[in-house]
Amino acid sequence: MTPIPMIELWRGDMRESLHAGHAVICDSRGVVAAWGDPDAVIYPRSACKMIQALPLIESGAADAAGLTDRQLALACASHSGAGVHVEAVGAWLEGLGLAEADLRCGSHMPGDPAENRRLTCSDHAPCQLHNNCSGKHAGFLTLNRHLGGDADYIEPDHPVQLAVRAAFEEVTGETSPGFGIDGCSAPNWACTVGGLARAMARFANPAPDRRGQAMRRLTDAMRGHPLMVAGEGRACTELMRAMGGTVAIKTGAEAVFVAILPERGLGIALKITDGATRASEAAIVALLSHLGALAGDDPAARARLGGQIVNCRGRATGELRLSAGFPA
Amino acid sequence: MTPIPMIELWRGDMRESLHAGHAVICDSRGVVAAWGDPDAVIYPRSACKMIQALPLIESGAADAAGLTDRQLALACASHSGAGVHVEAVGAWLEGLGLAEADLRCGSHMPGDPAENRRLTCSDHAPCQLHNNCSGKHAGFLTLNRHLGGDADYIEPDHPVQLAVRAAFEEVTGETSPGFGIDGCSAPNWACTVGGLARAMARFANPAPDRRGQAMRRLTDAMRGHPLMVAGEGRACTELMRAMGGTVAIKTGAEAVFVAILPERGLGIALKITDGATRASEAAIVALLSHLGALAGDDPAARARLGGQIVNCRGRATGELRLSAGFPA
Repeated sequence: MTPIPMIELWRGDMRESLHAGHAVICDSRGVVAAWGDPDAVIYPRSACKMIQALPLIESGAADAAGLTDRQLALACASHSGAGVHVEAVGAWLEGLGLAEADLRCGSHMPGDPAENRRLTCSDHAPCQLHNNCSGKHAGFLTLNRHLGGDADYIEPDHPVQLAVRAAFEEVTGETSPGFGIDGCSAPNWACTVGGLARAMARFANPAPDRRGQAMRRLTDAMRGHPLMVAGEGRACTELMRAMGGTVAIKTGAEAVFVAILPERGLGIALKITDGATRASEAAIVALLSHLGALAGDDPAARARLGGQIVNCRGRATGELRLSAGFPA
Repeated sequence: MTPIPMIELWRGDMRESLHAGHAVICDSRGVVAAWGDPDAVIYPRSACKMIQALPLIESGAADAAGLTDRQLALACASHSGAGVHVEAVGAWLEGLGLAEADLRCGSHMPGDPAENRRLTCSDHAPCQLHNNCSGKHAGFLTLNRHLGGDADYIEPDHPVQLAVRAAFEEVTGETSPGFGIDGCSAPNWACTVGGLARAMARFANPAPDRRGQAMRRLTDAMRGHPLMVAGEGRACTELMRAMGGTVAIKTGAEAVFVAILPERGLGIALKITDGATRASEAAIVALLSHLGALAGDDPAARARLGGQIVNCRGRATGELRLSAGFPA
């Protein structure tokens, strides 16, 4: 099945650009609704970080290290590299007796405007703590300390990544067809959009077992610490705040988005085929509004779907709209 | 007809994202080759700046103001707002007895890293000279001085914009279905991809008349001054340099790209449906290579199609590839 049109950019009286994709909503029994192809194979990218964090808790590593919910939120984050994130990951590593050099995520300039400016104007290079995935990697290092693996915890056959892969295949209910190397150098295992939605539904309906407890803890950490999951002005942070902490959501590169709705027992996964983040953000807003979890007229929602796009003189130039048939 | 797959992002052994679009190659007699729908209606955005500059020359305004080829290249530019661009547009306005405040393009932070950093770290706001369209607007002001219109030269019924619309409809051979407001607040008239390619073929095969002379002058200005058309590191500048000044090319927002090949008598226009610039750049590289105008293994080409994408630790993570059937 082909992807279906979801999000359109309008300018004047005409559609200027179009984004198609796949989206699936699951409950504990299976698919509740689907658009496009539930069997489309994707890289979930950072949208599966809460899955990648399961072994951290299930192994006992998180408790052994005394991790807080705030740290667990960081383990699931694609953060902006603001001071608050950098300091938290730095303190985490220090608590483990480790240092920035033990990370294997690499360095990139932070998205946070203030920290970006501070580095730029003081001629400082970013460090690995600024990497948007440094919280996930601090989680990997915490697990690695517990498992006693060697330093190269990002290699696909390392005990840390073998544990991540096993958890990923179990919760998606699929044997992954393979992995790609992510921006942070960790392997990212492929799955179907339907498999990813099924995994999110498991997080929304945690079983009364060790895995279910880990899922509940990660979901609560994310929705309880929206700033740790992304940053000021970012979709995950603003939309989780707009929903009053009732829902956990997570973006992934190349236009993946997932949501966990514990009160409704629902999980969502979507992928915009062309990889455009503006469209994945608009599409998750549409689905969350459609389900009644998010007010479509909330400023955080309107900024990503339906609100006027203005140019640098403040003139309205266009807007993002839903395609006919999506989601209703 | 639907758009056809053109550009794919591969990661690991799997296609991660996909871009589809429309592309047309014309010679002086009409369509030579087409992919997708030649009749797809698009906003050409900044890819039609050389058309918008025709009245500037044809009216005699450019000669009355003594404009150089370097200034004409700026009139066709989406520049980076580097010092070299800002100074050139400032001097142009000064030569007209006008000032930055006469521009109606608005201000945005420049793409040029050095100038961006200078403004950021000195707490200076950008001015309208930094707007990537300030050269086009300096051209509008030059034409307006000649026509004696009022100050609001960006209004769709202003003599400047009426002249632009007339030229646009004549060279595309179409009555435009309407306009949208561009990022720089000027009206941007819609046309088909085929109409835009036909216009580019006219630039490549200029008639021995006043319009043809204006077309030749603008094409020569663009390919003779690639740095003025965009900026260091940008696709238009790097690819025109790689082709040794034989071809004029121009990008437009939302993934439009055009090319004028005078030696071959060909014009190209393309639009990636989803608006992704990475794909429009890769697609124009593919078409220019396909026609033998650009060496596919030139670093400027490989950076946009076929070269390895590396992450912040220098690891290869993927690459942009051509879809089967495009362009051959």
